[in-house]
Order: sequence, then C-alpha cells, then structure tokens
Amino acid sequence: MAKKAHLNAEQMAKTQREISVSEFFAKNRHLLGFDNQRKALLTTIKEAVDNSLDACEEAGILPSILVEIHQLEEDRYRVVIEDNGPGIVKAQIPNIFGKLLYGSKFHSRRQSRGQQGIGISAAGLYGQMTCGKGPRIWSKTKRGKMHAFEMQMDLTKNKALITKDEEHKEWHQKEGTRFEIDIEATYQRGLRSVDDYIKQTAVSNPHAELRYLAPGMEEARVYERAIKIVPERADEIKPHPYGVELGELMKMLRNTNSRWLSGFLQEEFCRVGPKVAKGIIKEAGLGERSYPTRIAREEANKLFRAIQKTKISAPPTTCLSPIGEDRIKEGLMKECDADFYAVATRPPAVYRGNPFQIEVGIAWGKPGDDRLEVDKTGRITKTKRKRGTTDTEDLLGNADEAVRVLRFANRVPLLFQQAGCGFTKAVTQTAWKNYGLSQSKGALPVGSAVIFIHMASVWVPFTSEAKEAIAPYPEILKEVKLALQEAGRKLGVHIRKGRKVASEFQKRSYIEKYLPHVGIGLQEILGIDNEEREDLVETLRDSMESTRKI
Amino acid sequence: MAKKAHLNAEQMAKTQREISVSEFFAKNRHLLGFDNQRKALLTTIKEAVDNSLDACEEAGILPSILVEIHQLEEDRYRVVIEDNGPGIVKAQIPNIFGKLLYGSKFHSRRQSRGQQGIGISAAGLYGQMTCGKGPRIWSKTKRGKMHAFEMQMDLTKNKALITKDEEHKEWHQKEGTRFEIDIEATYQRGLRSVDDYIKQTAVSNPHAELRYLAPGMEEARVYERAIKIVPERADEIKPHPYGVELGELMKMLRNTNSRWLSGFLQEEFCRVGPKVAKGIIKEAGLGERSYPTRIAREEANKLFRAIQKTKISAPPTTCLSPIGEDRIKEGLMKECDADFYAVATRPPAVYRGNPFQIEVGIAWGKPGDDRLEVDKTGRITKTKRKRGTTDTEDLLGNADEAVRVLRFANRVPLLFQQAGCGFTKAVTQTAWKNYGLSQSKGALPVGSAVIFIHMASVWVPFTSEAKEAIAPYPEILKEVKLALQEAGRKLGVHIRKGRKVASEFQKRSYIEKYLPHVGIGLQEILGIDNEEREDLVETLRDSMESTRKI
Repeated sequence: MAKKAHLNAEQMAKTQREISVSEFFAKNRHLLGFDNQRKALLTTIKEAVDNSLDACEEAGILPSILVEIHQLEEDRYRVVIEDNGPGIVKAQIPNIFGKLLYGSKFHSRRQSRGQQGIGISAAGLYGQMTCGKGPRIWSKTKRGKMHAFEMQMDLTKNKALITKDEEHKEWHQKEGTRFEIDIEATYQRGLRSVDDYIKQTAVSNPHAELRYLAPGMEEARVYERAIKIVPERADEIKPHPYGVELGELMKMLRNTNSRWLSGFLQEEFCRVGPKVAKGIIKEAGLGERSYPTRIAREEANKLFRAIQKTKISAPPTTCLSPIGEDRIKEGLMKECDADFYAVATRPPAVYRGNPFQIEVGIAWGKPGDDRLEVDKTGRITKTKRKRGTTDTEDLLGNADEAVRVLRFANRVPLLFQQAGCGFTKAVTQTAWKNYGLSQSKGALPVGSAVIFIHMASVWVPFTSEAKEAIAPYPEILKEVKLALQEAGRKLGVHIRKGRKVASEFQKRSYIEKYLPHVGIGLQEILGIDNEEREDLVETLRDSMESTRKI
Repeated sequence: MAKKAHLNAEQMAKTQREISVSEFFAKNRHLLGFDNQRKALLTTIKEAVDNSLDACEEAGILPSILVEIHQLEEDRYRVVIEDNGPGIVKAQIPNIFGKLLYGSKFHSRRQSRGQQGIGISAAGLYGQMTCGKGPRIWSKTKRGKMHAFEMQMDLTKNKALITKDEEHKEWHQKEGTRFEIDIEATYQRGLRSVDDYIKQTAVSNPHAELRYLAPGMEEARVYERAIKIVPERADEIKPHPYGVELGELMKMLRNTNSRWLSGFLQEEFCRVGPKVAKGIIKEAGLGERSYPTRIAREEANKLFRAIQKTKISAPPTTCLSPIGEDRIKEGLMKECDADFYAVATRPPAVYRGNPFQIEVGIAWGKPGDDRLEVDKTGRITKTKRKRGTTDTEDLLGNADEAVRVLRFANRVPLLFQQAGCGFTKAVTQTAWKNYGLSQSKGALPVGSAVIFIHMASVWVPFTSEAKEAIAPYPEILKEVKLALQEAGRKLGVHIRKGRKVASEFQKRSYIEKYLPHVGIGLQEILGIDNEEREDLVETLRDSMESTRKI
C-alpha cells in the first residue's frame, strides 16, 4: 500500500461524522462488562434479572424469576430469563430491548437496580454481534395480549428492526416477560460465576423466588422466597440544592414555570421552604420577586454561591429502600451456615446531593468446625458441625483465608473489580484485630467469615458502565467503615466469649484428666476406700467447677 | 411525602424515554475523567492537546502548541489550547466541539490519539455545567477566513447552539485552532499534574513544540522540538478476517457491492487473495460464485467458522506509526539525566484482529550520584554528577524508591489508574532481579530508574472512556514483557559492569593504601635504599594492575 498524502481541513471535514451510541458500545463492549466470554454470560443474565426485579417491585408483585442457560455449541449458549412482572406495552418493547440509552430510571431520582438504560439492549447487541441473531421477547400485560417479538438491531441508527411480531391470546402466565438471546460465552462454576451471582441475588432479595437451570444440572435449582412482602416502592425526590451545579441551575431557571425566584427555589428543590429560600436570595443579593427566567449568568452564579453558604437540611430518605437488618440476617443464614451473625445499619447520609444508606452484615464460624457449647447446667459440649443445609456450596471460606466480601448496590451483587471498589477499601481500612480477626496492614482480614455490604441510593456512583464497583467517595467510605465497626464490635464480643469457652473447656479437660489421679493419691494418704474416694473426687470437681465462671 | 402507588405496564410506559448521550455522560462524568477538580483540569487539556497533535500530523505540519491555565476564582480556571494545525471548516466546528460521539477517527482503522469523538465536547460540557459558559473556538483554515464561535450545548439534543459567530479576515496565525473553556478545577504541581503531563508529552512527541503557562509561572515554559520531521501519516487498513465477528460478517455480506463471494472476501478484508478466498469458501462448503447478499445466517456461520480454521497472514503494519528507538532515547535524555539508557522495539503483533506494536525504554542512574569512570589509560576517576540540565524536576527518583513507569498509548501519556493498567502488570511480572534491580514478588522493581512503555495501535483497548489504562489482553502483556526483557538485559550488563568498576575501584584503593607499607617491609628485608624501594613499589603496582582486567 502506498502512504497516503497529508490532508487539509476540507478533506478532513469529509470524514467527520456522527458515531451512534450502539456503534460506540459495540466497539467498546468491555466497558459494559462483555470483555470476555465468561463475563459476557454473567452480564447478560444480570442485566435481565435486574430489570425483572425492578419491574416486579414497581408493580408490587412478588418476583418469581426463571433463569436458564442452554449450551448450543462449544462456545455458544442460549440464555432465557422469564419473570412474572407487569409486562411491557407493545410499543415500548423495541425501544427497551433494541435501543441503547432508553429507559425510565435514568431521569428519576429514585432507587432502582438499573439506572442507565443500556444493559439489556447491550446484551442483545452482544448476542447479535457474536451469534448473528437478535433478541426474542415474549411479553404480556394484565389487560393486554401476549406479544412475541424477534428483532435485529441496526447499529448505525441505534434502533431495532422488528423481524417477527405475533399476537397470542393465551400464555402460560397472566402477566410477565420472557427474554431470550444466543451469545458467545463460557459457562463455569466457582467464584464470580453465574451460580455465585444467583446465590447472592437470593441473599439480597429474600422476597424473590429464583429458579435456575444451568448446563450439567438435572433439574432447576430453586431458591425459595424467605419473606412474602414486596419491598416498599421508594419515593422519587426533587434535587437537593447542594447537589446542583451552576450550569444545571441556569437550565432550571430558564425552564421553570415559577414566576418568582422564591417560588422557583421552593418548587424545584427539596428541603427549601420560604425561610430557606429567603435566606438564599438575601445571601445572593437578589430580590425575592425576581423573574427566574430573566436571571442572567452573573446573577445565577451569585445564587449558586449563596446556596453553598446557606444551611439546608439533608434530603429526605423516603427515596431509599434498604434491605433491613432482619432480612440481611435471614439471607446470610440461608446461604452461610455460620456460628454467629451480626448486622448493622447506618442512618441515611448524602454524597454530592444524593441520599444513600449503608447496611452491613457479618457471618462468622467455619462450617464443619467443632462447636463448643455451654448447656443450661454449665456443662460444655463439643459437637461436630453439620454442613450447610443448602444443596450448594456454603459461602464461608476456611479460617486461614481472607474473609469473603459480598458487595451489593441497590440489592444487586457486584462480582468483579473487587480490588478497585470503595467497599473493599473500607474493609481493608478497618482495624479487624480489635474484633478478633487477624489482618495484615492494608489487606483484607483473615478468618472464616463473610462480610456483606449493601448501599441503597438514588444514584450509585459506579466506576464503569459495567456497574462492577463503587467509586470511593469519602462520604461513602466513611459510612461503610462506621457500619463495619458497629458489626465488628458485636463480632469481637462473640469471638472473645468463644475463646473463653474454649480455654475453659481446655481447663476442664485437665481437671477431668488429673482429678482421678489426685483421688488415688488422696486415697493412699487418707487410707479411705474406693467409694469414699469417688465421693471425694465428685465433691472436689463440683467445688472446682462452681468456683469457675464462664 | 406520601408513598406512591404501584404502577402497571401502561403507567410505566409513560416514563420510558430516550436518554441523550450528553445527559448520560454529564451524569456519569467520572467515566470520562472528570471525577474530581484536579483530574478535570488535566483531562480538559489532554483532550485538546490530543486533537491538536492529531490534526497537525494528519496535515503534515510540525506542531506548535500553546497551553495556558489562568485562575479566575478560587476553584475556577480558564484553559486555553491553541495550535498551528490545519484549522476546522466552519460547518464542522459546532459538531466537533458541541456534540458527543462525533469525529473522523472512530470509524477508521488507523493509529491516532483520539478515537472516540467524545473528549473535547465532554470538556466543553463539563465547563458549561460547572461555570455556566460553553466553549469558545477560533479557527482558520489556510484558504478560509478566521471564524470565532461561542456555543451553548443542549444536553437533551446532544447539539450545540451557536451564541456568537463572527468572521475575521486576519488572525495572528495563517492557520490553526484555539479552544477556550472556563472550568471548575484545582491546579497542583507534582506527580500526575498538568506539568507532569506536558513534560511527558514532550518526551513522546519530540517533533512537537509546546509552550506552557500555568499559575505561578512568570513566563511560558518552552519545550523545544528535538527533531524537525513530522511522523509519517499511518495508513488506514481494511479489517482482518480473524477480527470479524459473525454479526459484523453478516452485515458486510448484506452491504457489499461485490457480486461473488470470492470477490467479497478479497475486496472487504486485508490479507485475502484469490488462494486464501478459495480456501475459506471450500472449507465453508460454499460456492465461489455465491451471491454475497443472498447468504443467510446459517451459511454466514459456516463462512465465519471456516475463516477461523484457515491460515491467514497477520495484518499489514503500515497502519502503525511507532515513535522509534532514537526518538525514545532522545526524549528520555531530554527529561532524565541518567547514567544509562536502553531501548527495545518489538515487531508488530495482533490482538483481536488489531495490529499493535510495543516500544520500551529504560533510563537508569540517579542524578547527583557519584560516577565512577575508567579513562583510556585504565585509571578510575570518581566525579560528582551535575543535576539535570532542564529547568524542571528530573523524572528519575531515588535509588530506594519504586521505579517510575511512564505509560503511553499512541504517544499520549497515561497518568491515572496505574495499578489497573496492563503495562504495570507486565512490569511487575518481569524478573528485574536478573537485570540488577531489586524487586519484591508482584511489585514494581526498586531503583533510580524510569521505564518508558509505548503502545502504537489502530485501536487501543482502554479500560474506560477516560483512556487512563490499557486492558490486559494476553497478547499485549506478552509483547510488553518481551520488550522489557530485551531492554532489561542491556541494563543488566551495564549495572554488572558498573558494579565491577566499583569493586575494582575498591580493590585499587586497597593497593594504593597498602602497597607503600609492603614497600617499607621489603626495603627492610632486602636492605635497599628509598629510590630502589619506590621503583620496586611502582613495578609491583604496574604488574598487579596489568594482571587485572576491568
């Protein structure tokens, strides 16, 4: 090939053109979690399950979700996700499944699993790119018919072309949605696998029933629901003044329907009443009766600076839907057969104007370990532990391994990028030695424990579109650490008590071992018979044990 | 606020809508490198300088680039970047600076700094969001007039609104572009600062002249160009068959102008001649004279599988424009006053169908360290080193610190996310002890050294849109490690030689110290006079030194 000549501005202009968001993410698919075949399988399932859970909760339905993975060829799999949610109206199906950046959650300030409107269409796009077939969707609303769609995505236009569109009167569900896609993938078990994701999803969503069928399983594995209450639907909130930037403020001023500045502030923001509005306007040196739409950049800037200087209470937290301490404990108990469970919840806090709340849980004690227990009479019993009651592997690791950290954002388990996650940073920065676990500086603590961390927020700051890790905002780090300390203290008390029992057990076994010999010695010295000796030994044992406390 | 009622499918449909790419990135600006004020300043400058360098090279112009940072308020700065590039035609200015996902580089398979068409408009968007004013652009093409633009970006439409549009006959440059934006930022010196970025850009672009003015400087710092040759413009290449996926192949088949399948393969791909085309078609069990546009999914799949099974040579590498060993060495010498420099270049390689090439350089030896040298007569001299000749800080660190790694992709320095970068992984996985540096397992080596790594590629796999780190593809890791080993071996020879000189120096100083005493002893034993003694000592010294080799 000959080298090309240099270009001038006019020649360059001819090659400059728009890039569609589908083309962009198709070429950069690793940004969305499709960087390798193993992760692609997980991401596809995760995005679909997220949407199903969100839809069920918005509609107040207890979710029953089916996840199936079928192997088609060596490196190709068919993935099926079906829910009993409210279904999707016909006109929106091509948009939701066939257009990147489309959805209802991005613009609302309310907690939900999805937030970007990219995930499920990206999964369809990935399937189409790697296996040549677009997604298939079946959906039925309560009042509508069942619609079966097949589509091909047009990358250049970021739009779906419908290739099949059928209507059926009957379906096996009253309402719900089924999504099917063929993708290039690898199915593996173990850490960060789909198996792992499904199990963790069951922990953080005890109200959901999950049925899961993967290659090698004879029948679907069922995760029953632990509670029969749908989480309360979180409120949508207005922006908080502290979280707004100058450019956004100017846009809001231009677009408002409020006639006066004071009304604008009270109408468009949360936590602004007449008194706070008056304070802001006075600080800015503006008039309460200024016309918002006529405020120029300089005045807007004064208003912006005045907001930062005014004391305004934190945003309301009815927009949050935490899991709850009982639910976390139940979830942990279901999946980890531990000796001890501790949970802690922080009050809601705020970062960049966004309310959030941190919940943590700790499960401790290796399954299969011997258990020492003190019964009502004060006797210590040593029992061999049974393995977990679930049919799958227990989440607890060995006593000489780093603890396992389960990370969740708006109830969604985060499986990748653990090292780059703010949650992990908070765990390593907590002094676990104080709570009875060993820990090297800057590392995860060591012990047979599982640490569960959940962040509920109207906007989770993920480090990438793949939503794998939380950006380490200082406010978030601080809250996670405080929650860990609270749960850690409870764990510390338990571990210390356990150590006392163990040392007591040790001492008692010494007594049991040597007391008969002491009896024989005394028998010889005192010249008593065997029965007297046994009485004496019994008396000695009782008095020794009664002087000891556990 | 009262809890909202649950929604049905019809109610949900009303809130589902399109999200513009501007809105998406405004809310997720940390994905683009605007996560904090310090990084925002760097990202803004980096995106503008990238574009200026790309434009100059495409037009065959030796770049002269001005970068200015002016403090406006405590947390607000004005950033100016002006180049002597070919300018931008009037109609394209609003698109290039006011629309995210717009440009010429995304769709071309050719090495360039920019690739996504997001960066510079994101910087403008960030400025508008934080300071309320959109970007200002002045641009003049060789044959055209100078156009001065001011614009406001419409987030919802991802489009720029022109607020000022002036035409001038004269400008202080014949051709070029000037970009100005006010942003919320923090200016700091030190590692990962703009100062650092500018210095590193000078190292990797020795053909560019950079003038840099930042707060606190009395006058602009000038980085002169070291060479006066514009890098050759890289070729654009066709896709390689191994890099294409089934979905893409189907699209190409639908859209081709070729009438026969054999022609299609030869026309649309690189490295496919009649023989290879015949081989692929035979393997797929299709006919050479099949109509490409009529090939259905099943046949396309056979073609796709056949391509993977056919031996096809690696893509051409004229699409790459490496820096070159001499340039890397010159650049390192300009910015590090080291004892020793080694460079290594790998032959071009391929990942996922994309050609790439790795170049590395090592500078070693602490500035200010004593230097031991052997002169022509074999004498060893010990000289105190002068500090570096540049007016800024030398890039070399201390001997007891981890080495500094300078990472570059298509000549652009990467300053953040070092820990998550494939380059860093390759450095830590290299056995530096073999080459005379100390190193703990899995850590960077320790020593007063700078390691320079450059990847030239038609498509650099960044781990995020902020383009801060390279995804660790196995093929890339392997090439970087091989290059480091090659340069490392050269360094090892030098360090061992230096140690030999040092140990020689030590031994000689022993001779110098004890030989006179030996002379006195011999004088007493042999009964010789002082002159004879000195002759004897001299003879002894000569014969001892002549039996030693350095």
